[in-house]
Amino acid sequence: MLRVEIINTGTELMMGFILNTHQQWLCRELSALGYVVSRQTAVPDTARDIQDAVRESMERAQLIIVTGGLGPTSDDRTRDLIAELLGKNLWEDKRILAHIEAFFAKRKRRLPESTKVQAMVPEGATVLWNDHGTAPGLAMDYSGGILIMLPGPPRELRPMFSERVIPLLAQRLPTPGGFACVTLKTTGLGESFVEERIAKKLESLRDQGLEIGYCARVGEVDVRLLARTAEAERIVNEAEAITCEVLKEFVYGRDPEQLDAVVVRLLTERGMTLAIAESCTGGFIANRITNISGASAVLLAGLVTYSNKAKEQFLGVKAETLAAHGAVSEAVAIEMAAGACERTGADFGLSVTGIAGPTGGTPEKPIGTVYIGLARRPNVTAKKYLNQYDRETFKYVTSQQALDWLRREILLATDRS
Amino acid sequence: MLRVEIINTGTELMMGFILNTHQQWLCRELSALGYVVSRQTAVPDTARDIQDAVRESMERAQLIIVTGGLGPTSDDRTRDLIAELLGKNLWEDKRILAHIEAFFAKRKRRLPESTKVQAMVPEGATVLWNDHGTAPGLAMDYSGGILIMLPGPPRELRPMFSERVIPLLAQRLPTPGGFACVTLKTTGLGESFVEERIAKKLESLRDQGLEIGYCARVGEVDVRLLARTAEAERIVNEAEAITCEVLKEFVYGRDPEQLDAVVVRLLTERGMTLAIAESCTGGFIANRITNISGASAVLLAGLVTYSNKAKEQFLGVKAETLAAHGAVSEAVAIEMAAGACERTGADFGLSVTGIAGPTGGTPEKPIGTVYIGLARRPNVTAKKYLNQYDRETFKYVTSQQALDWLRREILLATDRS
Repeated sequence: MLRVEIINTGTELMMGFILNTHQQWLCRELSALGYVVSRQTAVPDTARDIQDAVRESMERAQLIIVTGGLGPTSDDRTRDLIAELLGKNLWEDKRILAHIEAFFAKRKRRLPESTKVQAMVPEGATVLWNDHGTAPGLAMDYSGGILIMLPGPPRELRPMFSERVIPLLAQRLPTPGGFACVTLKTTGLGESFVEERIAKKLESLRDQGLEIGYCARVGEVDVRLLARTAEAERIVNEAEAITCEVLKEFVYGRDPEQLDAVVVRLLTERGMTLAIAESCTGGFIANRITNISGASAVLLAGLVTYSNKAKEQFLGVKAETLAAHGAVSEAVAIEMAAGACERTGADFGLSVTGIAGPTGGTPEKPIGTVYIGLARRPNVTAKKYLNQYDRETFKYVTSQQALDWLRREILLATDRS
Repeated sequence: MLRVEIINTGTELMMGFILNTHQQWLCRELSALGYVVSRQTAVPDTARDIQDAVRESMERAQLIIVTGGLGPTSDDRTRDLIAELLGKNLWEDKRILAHIEAFFAKRKRRLPESTKVQAMVPEGATVLWNDHGTAPGLAMDYSGGILIMLPGPPRELRPMFSERVIPLLAQRLPTPGGFACVTLKTTGLGESFVEERIAKKLESLRDQGLEIGYCARVGEVDVRLLARTAEAERIVNEAEAITCEVLKEFVYGRDPEQLDAVVVRLLTERGMTLAIAESCTGGFIANRITNISGASAVLLAGLVTYSNKAKEQFLGVKAETLAAHGAVSEAVAIEMAAGACERTGADFGLSVTGIAGPTGGTPEKPIGTVYIGLARRPNVTAKKYLNQYDRETFKYVTSQQALDWLRREILLATDRS
């Protein structure tokens, strides 16, 4: 089997200043293509550390992906160090230089002299064009395989991998035999419940080579169905059908479609609209919806009514309701959802009011208390949840509950009509 | 210098199913104590991969921290494999067994037989008590130093590191000499411009041992100032003063304080309030502000007015202005900011209207066109930007520009008065 290794360079990684999201992203992408990473290494931007790591990987692996250190500053040395290790000289590629100059000219910024180093290419290297920045990626052959250097910024690395590296791998290092993988996204059930419900029913496919993986995250559980045989496609398709049949509406989609994208898709397909009224989630739900291209066709407005006065002014929540029940209450969640609907004319009104913490809890309403309201005129209801997490996780979990309820309601509304 | 390495075990890491947050957390903790990690490796749960990685680290490092693989299931093999590598037998520690039994009894759960493996201890190992789970950590000596095994779940690993590992290190591997590190956060300048402005002025401190690192992210550049000498504190303090003097208002803070937290802090200190009117950023700015605990004292409301009708209804933008200039225009940004201010009574009104893409651009207003408006009654102005990125990056960059402008305006407003 092909051995794949990843090397992430950057002193900022070793100091813990930034989170290494490249590892997960690249491992996930490579796995989905049938390549399995057998080692990942992170090293600081020092010559010896980078060269040692690359030299050791070359002895073991047939594919090495190195990230970072292709920028214009003095601590960006990956290109030079690897060229030196492989005994290659660097030459200036005029096409890259022109691309860099155009990149700066378009943004009306002066081109710093140091940036030109990014046009230097080791002899024999394949240039991987960068449509989202100045530093190109580079692919170089070594005696045991292929080494690929990618720029550190995720917005440059990710499209470069998808558009340049995948075709290169398909041509130069095709994966052996069959391979299929599907990840189903579920929400509303714990990991062990998901396993309990499906494991038995998938047993015979398991005997045929199906590999099942569960990945529990806050607010959702992924079920990964994978096979590496000539029959991979059929096995995974059958497993997917069984899983969806057993878990029913707990499956909200297929990776990489997120819950927010599912909601926007369902509303768009039905020509329906949404208004959101948020207190404790502070715009997080509106932000998730507007991350999806096409959201403007379904989202009429999002009202982040953090203060009581804003709840009255923008949503028509009654002062008496606030006084009688408090801002975090079923009654206020209901008036917020109804108000969002009525004032915008949207088909659905979704509201959230709660206590994110770390301060503000009381014995009756502890931190984590949250009411979600959902209006579809003339009906409006609210549910209570208790989400005891840190502030950002609280927002995420609450948004999953709110969007999943909305998703089910859209489906029900359509079934009924 | 002491060489520290981290080894993260887990097939789920190599498949990309989970994000390796241990690396950043441990690197950050160790850095703060003056230990610098020179390599981090992740390997799957296979005997050969784990033993190879540990053997190689033992040849280089004086401190090795291994995470994961101490649990009760068949893929948890770290304890056995490392004991085997070091030629140590395992024995059952009755105190750990009693702890495990008590742990299950307290939760009224049956103790699975497999869990008892966690009471096995390699000869000569120091047991690191686990107050948050069943698997203890283990510290073992090897010829070149100390190897520490920690359980994978963050809620167990983190307190164990703080409460058990730090005292052990202080006793067994005290850090040599001085250490100081500060990271300054800047926005509004490119990475190479930052370096161009400060590198020369820091040269003499560099000769005294200052290490400078630049980390460019979308919308900001970090400058890391670090020294590891007896004079570390003085060197880093002087470097910080020089950097702040040269880069002036481009420095918005010191790591780990983010721009959103700086804005909330500045407003809180001055008892001032904010209202936000967002179109293309769709609630992202309100979400950033409300991620900060204490935001409720400064944010009166966030209006995500995605549709023209919502702009008129919630912000009082005039239909004629929308008709004459279009929703993405200086005039509309100004009316949005002014409307947010007036309707809520906030001290500052911040507005954003633009074209996030990937659709909706025109020759006159290409994708990425954005107007940011800022009102402080009776004044209100707007600026035009061109942020050509994918949808989520567009939102982030725009939010940085908006919050940085607001930050500068808050400071100016205070200087003036």
